[in-house]
Amino acid sequence: MRSVADWLTSLQTDTPQEGFELAITLARKGVAYTQTSAETREKLRPVYADDADSLTMASQVIAIHYQTVAAANNYWK
Amino acid sequence: MRSVADWLTSLQTDTPQEGFELAITLARKGVAYTQTSAETREKLRPVYADDADSLTMASQVIAIHYQTVAAANNYWK
Amino acid sequence: MRSVADWLTSLQTDTPQEGFELAITLARKGVAYTQTSAETREKLRPVYADDADSLTMASQVIAIHYQTVAAANNYWK
Amino acid sequence: MRSVADWLTSLQTDTPQEGFELAITLARKGVAYTQTSAETREKLRPVYADDADSLTMASQVIAIHYQTVAAANNYWK
Amino acid sequence: MRSVADWLTSLQTDTPQEGFELAITLARKGVAYTQTSAETREKLRPVYADDADSLTMASQVIAIHYQTVAAANNYWK
Amino acid sequence: MRSVADWLTSLQTDTPQEGFELAITLARKGVAYTQTSAETREKLRPVYADDADSLTMASQVIAIHYQTVAAANNYWK
Repeated sequence: MRSVADWLTSLQTDTPQEGFELAITLARKGVAYTQTSAETREKLRPVYADDADSLTMASQVIAIHYQTVAAANNYWK
Repeated sequence: MRSVADWLTSLQTDTPQEGFELAITLARKGVAYTQTSAETREKLRPVYADDADSLTMASQVIAIHYQTVAAANNYWK
Repeated sequence: MRSVADWLTSLQTDTPQEGFELAITLARKGVAYTQTSAETREKLRPVYADDADSLTMASQVIAIHYQTVAAANNYWK
Repeated sequence: MRSVADWLTSLQTDTPQEGFELAITLARKGVAYTQTSAETREKLRPVYADDADSLTMASQVIAIHYQTVAAANNYWK
Repeated sequence: MRSVADWLTSLQTDTPQEGFELAITLARKGVAYTQTSAETREKLRPVYADDADSLTMASQVIAIHYQTVAAANNYWK
Repeated sequence: MRSVADWLTSLQTDTPQEGFELAITLARKGVAYTQTSAETREKLRPVYADDADSLTMASQVIAIHYQTVAAANNYWK
């Protein structure tokens, strides 16, 4: 695994919404570790951002990560 | 993550049905953070709303979020 | 979220089989909230009901909801 | 939900392997409730049974149900 | 469910790696119960083993089973 | 299961980020056990690394493994 700057030091967030935004970050990082060129990722963005199924798939990855983040925060109870 | 208005302050809901509707909101937010143009999202709606597999995929994202919301509410026991 | 009649007041069921049927209801509701026209949903039914992969995908959404319902019922132990 | 004969009275099984076979039953039931014609399901079988991705998708639904069944049996510890 | 030889007597493994290999076995068994002909499965192998998305899908089924196996082993803590 | 060198001795990591990187390793191993030729895997890389949906699918497998790793580490609380 190539050495990268620290980008994730905790799964704890103050609010459920910040947790959701962390889930989005995690989903994007999963892509970024696989396609390391930011330029290529930027080129692909208009492709999937205008495709309904691609957006649903992206939303699904966020949903899976949100399960993790929510559990890590005891569901912000 | 761009600053947005607060849209999620709690995962707690009064009933299982409200929890289901929150899961739908979460699924849509996952899309909205990825495709930020409401106009584009509106244009895509007729595409996936008339496609059986797209609807099943959308239902799946809701199902994943519903797991989170239901756990957050201790399954409304 | 448009106001709809109450359709889900509890995740508790008497038996594992009733829980499975509740999972099916949840999967269909996920579709119905997205495509609100019952007529359109009815028109799509023959499309996916005769397609093996569509059926597998539908079965998958049921499986995800069944995890939730089963947990809510402590697995009917 | 149409009335059907009882086919699921418990998620408990004696062994992890029987639990796996129950997960397969649950996956198939998810299909059968959606496509109620056994004849149509039989016709679709050769289509997906000879397609690698269809088989992987079917295996995935089994995996999701197996999570439920395994949890219901406390992982047969 | 056709009678088969015992192939799964426990979800317990000595190490996380053996658990991963058990997850692979479970994923393959999910396929084998659906397509019972070993010859057909062998014929399909080159199809999906050379397709990036098919491999990702196969990896996903393993990941789902690994969640089950890891929980069964209390994460080998 | 062919004998391979030890590559996974623990699911414990020091930080959430190392846990994420372990999840990536697990996702890749799921592919590597299925397509054992490193040369073939290398050839497939440009195919999926330039495809938005393939990247999303890869990110999803990472997300599923990350659930496991995070639970194994009690969410690094």
